Amino acid sequence: MGERDSHTRTADDSRALTVAEVRLTPILISDPPLLNTQGVHQPYTPRLIIEVITADGTTGVGETYGDTRYLDLAAPLAKALPGHSVSDLNGLFTLAEQVCGDPADVSDSVDVGGLRGVQTADKLRLSVISGFEVACLDALGKSVGLPVHTLLGGKVRDSVDYSAYLFYRLAAHPQGSGETDDWGAALDPAGVVAQARRFADTYGFGSFKLKGGVFPPEQEIAAVRALAEAFPGQPLRLDPNGAWSVETSLAVARELGDVLEYLEDPASTTDRMARVAAGTEVPLATNMCVTTFPEIEEAFTRKAVQVVLSDHHYWGGLRNTQQLAAICRTFGVGLSMHSNTHLGISLAAMNHVAATVPNLDYACDTHYPWQTEDVITRRHVFTGGRLAVSDLPGLGVELDHDALAVLHRRWLADDGALRDRDDAAAMRKADPGWRTPSVPRW
Amino acid sequence: MGERDSHTRTADDSRALTVAEVRLTPILISDPPLLNTQGVHQPYTPRLIIEVITADGTTGVGETYGDTRYLDLAAPLAKALPGHSVSDLNGLFTLAEQVCGDPADVSDSVDVGGLRGVQTADKLRLSVISGFEVACLDALGKSVGLPVHTLLGGKVRDSVDYSAYLFYRLAAHPQGSGETDDWGAALDPAGVVAQARRFADTYGFGSFKLKGGVFPPEQEIAAVRALAEAFPGQPLRLDPNGAWSVETSLAVARELGDVLEYLEDPASTTDRMARVAAGTEVPLATNMCVTTFPEIEEAFTRKAVQVVLSDHHYWGGLRNTQQLAAICRTFGVGLSMHSNTHLGISLAAMNHVAATVPNLDYACDTHYPWQTEDVITRRHVFTGGRLAVSDLPGLGVELDHDALAVLHRRWLADDGALRDRDDAAAMRKADPGWRTPSVPRW
Repeated sequence: MGERDSHTRTADDSRALTVAEVRLTPILISDPPLLNTQGVHQPYTPRLIIEVITADGTTGVGETYGDTRYLDLAAPLAKALPGHSVSDLNGLFTLAEQVCGDPADVSDSVDVGGLRGVQTADKLRLSVISGFEVACLDALGKSVGLPVHTLLGGKVRDSVDYSAYLFYRLAAHPQGSGETDDWGAALDPAGVVAQARRFADTYGFGSFKLKGGVFPPEQEIAAVRALAEAFPGQPLRLDPNGAWSVETSLAVARELGDVLEYLEDPASTTDRMARVAAGTEVPLATNMCVTTFPEIEEAFTRKAVQVVLSDHHYWGGLRNTQQLAAICRTFGVGLSMHSNTHLGISLAAMNHVAATVPNLDYACDTHYPWQTEDVITRRHVFTGGRLAVSDLPGLGVELDHDALAVLHRRWLADDGALRDRDDAAAMRKADPGWRTPSVPRW
Repeated sequence: MGERDSHTRTADDSRALTVAEVRLTPILISDPPLLNTQGVHQPYTPRLIIEVITADGTTGVGETYGDTRYLDLAAPLAKALPGHSVSDLNGLFTLAEQVCGDPADVSDSVDVGGLRGVQTADKLRLSVISGFEVACLDALGKSVGLPVHTLLGGKVRDSVDYSAYLFYRLAAHPQGSGETDDWGAALDPAGVVAQARRFADTYGFGSFKLKGGVFPPEQEIAAVRALAEAFPGQPLRLDPNGAWSVETSLAVARELGDVLEYLEDPASTTDRMARVAAGTEVPLATNMCVTTFPEIEEAFTRKAVQVVLSDHHYWGGLRNTQQLAAICRTFGVGLSMHSNTHLGISLAAMNHVAATVPNLDYACDTHYPWQTEDVITRRHVFTGGRLAVSDLPGLGVELDHDALAVLHRRWLADDGALRDRDDAAAMRKADPGWRTPSVPRW
């Protein structure tokens, strides 16, 4: 068994892994009229599809937010990347720092709001890097013939458990715009239970999250109680996106403590979460007050959160997600994964990293069933609430160039009104007086 | 630019990466008569060399401790590994848990002592896994044509900074056993400065660590003062391996605060370190009270340490070392790397992971210049105090089978006396009444 000629292989492979071209394709994808505390999802929402093409013709794909301020950061990174290796994942952060200036409309200071907590230039940059990292990992995996989970150290499970993501929703978008579907409205306990039943029957999900913060807490408590009756013993979660005061959060925790697996972001800010946590045994989860590394120390030392809902878009990619997992493991904090409007590329990426994390303590969120459009040739299918981990090289998905072109044309045709997600604006179509509620709302 | 046929490549590469054979070779390597608080290094010290050979004939090499209790854990892991993929690094931990029972002579409870802090079965297992992980990474890198640093996400520097590791030492081993060298004794400030001068002249090291805990603190203070005079402005460190009381530690910190870059493990246990840290501005470093993930939370929340000296042997490999680095980064704790008696395989591994860590805040320790024997064909060379990061596939080192055989024969010829490192036993050759000092010694 002779050793290979290492020198030759390196030189060849280095060239093969060099980025030759990067393609950025902003798209608009359809989104149902789902309600949250800020308003309602618009009929279409922007995403950015990233293709990284290496010198040997391998294409890796990534996906991230597509709002203007993300596109403004992605463009210089795409321009700077050719000549670098798809294997230089740490270098992406250095490069992004060098070439991505701060987006004009985001200061590093306040800018409260949004469903992902305080927004900063750093957070936007990390979300952009995330899309590029996934594309590079996909290309690297295809080039060396290894699935992304192997590039991340190897899967510890063959499939990943997901939870049904229930939303209060309208039957159709206000003023009849956008696509239609056959889900109907869900605006009361019976509607929520019917939605949950369809999710369970169709996909086999065994746990349920209700997006709350839409109606006064007593109505949402009633909905969760109805779920508990309909699905006895199955894990339930409620997420009002920080809409409640500390007192209201504690009251809800008392009411639902016997049926909640965790209560997600009942109150906004780490300080409020810490005060809630001090008064209840119900675990608190977050994807709002801990969404970057600098937010961890205060939250963990104050015991403000018991579960971090990771999102590789927020945290700067799959490898950073693994690092977050290690920190959670070390500090005895639970880990699960957040999901909002995204397509099959991001779900594939999420599934790969989820497969490698030993301490994935709860079923992951998935918004994916609400997305009927996609840019991959074969949609992911949940079976028994789980998604199998692909062992194909890279992410294991193939870009559907025709679908991508259609969705890109929709973006081109838009007058700019939908190129930046604005749930409050969508709500004003139904309720002209609507304004983003201040928190705590209740 | 067409995409490759992914399916075919995977199947091929999966087979190619499967472990076909594992070879374990215990060796004894020469070690100079270096003094520490427990005694003196024995003339020879055990190491274990691990070869992992894949189905396509690629060999990866790793290195770890070679004492009997490590060999007892390595043997079942070596037996269980064939059939697994060298890419399944996460799986190594699962496998080790399944097949490596707890070593007979280590309980999970106390067993105080040793220069790496409290020993537990978990720590021993992680050290064994570390050697296997490095061997797997080396094989994987050679197979896919990528250097280990690339498998770890990519280097962020082309060379790594190291510090001179100064020891009080005897001119020769007690009773004339072992190899000889031309360093002479170093038992006072002049001897320490002369040793430092030779290190600086030969290797270009620009910072200096003195292994202390050997003489009463005032003598070691004098040695550090002498170094400060001889090398003005250059970073200095003192490491008594936990030999001092809190009061003595604080007294030394006051005496040397103006010249110390950090004070390393002045007192043993996290509690004592926290009390020292509370009373001085001098950063405290450790490779004793924080050597595993479960030890982090208390130490970090109590602000007991300001620098963690990582060691991939302790932490369970290169990827765990990166996770430790992420935790340190997140909690504002500095990071550097520890080194004790090891050969060129482990130095290569250390250099690769050090190259990938953004927050490598201090020059790394290196014990390597004290090791004159090796099992690689081309020894590493420090230039300007730095070691270049190899871009060859894998670790970039080649096993010297002849040298390995010689050192293995030495191990075979040993009657068992040196197969388990015991610095106190070596000291008794010079001082029959010597016993391992209890801490705090001063």
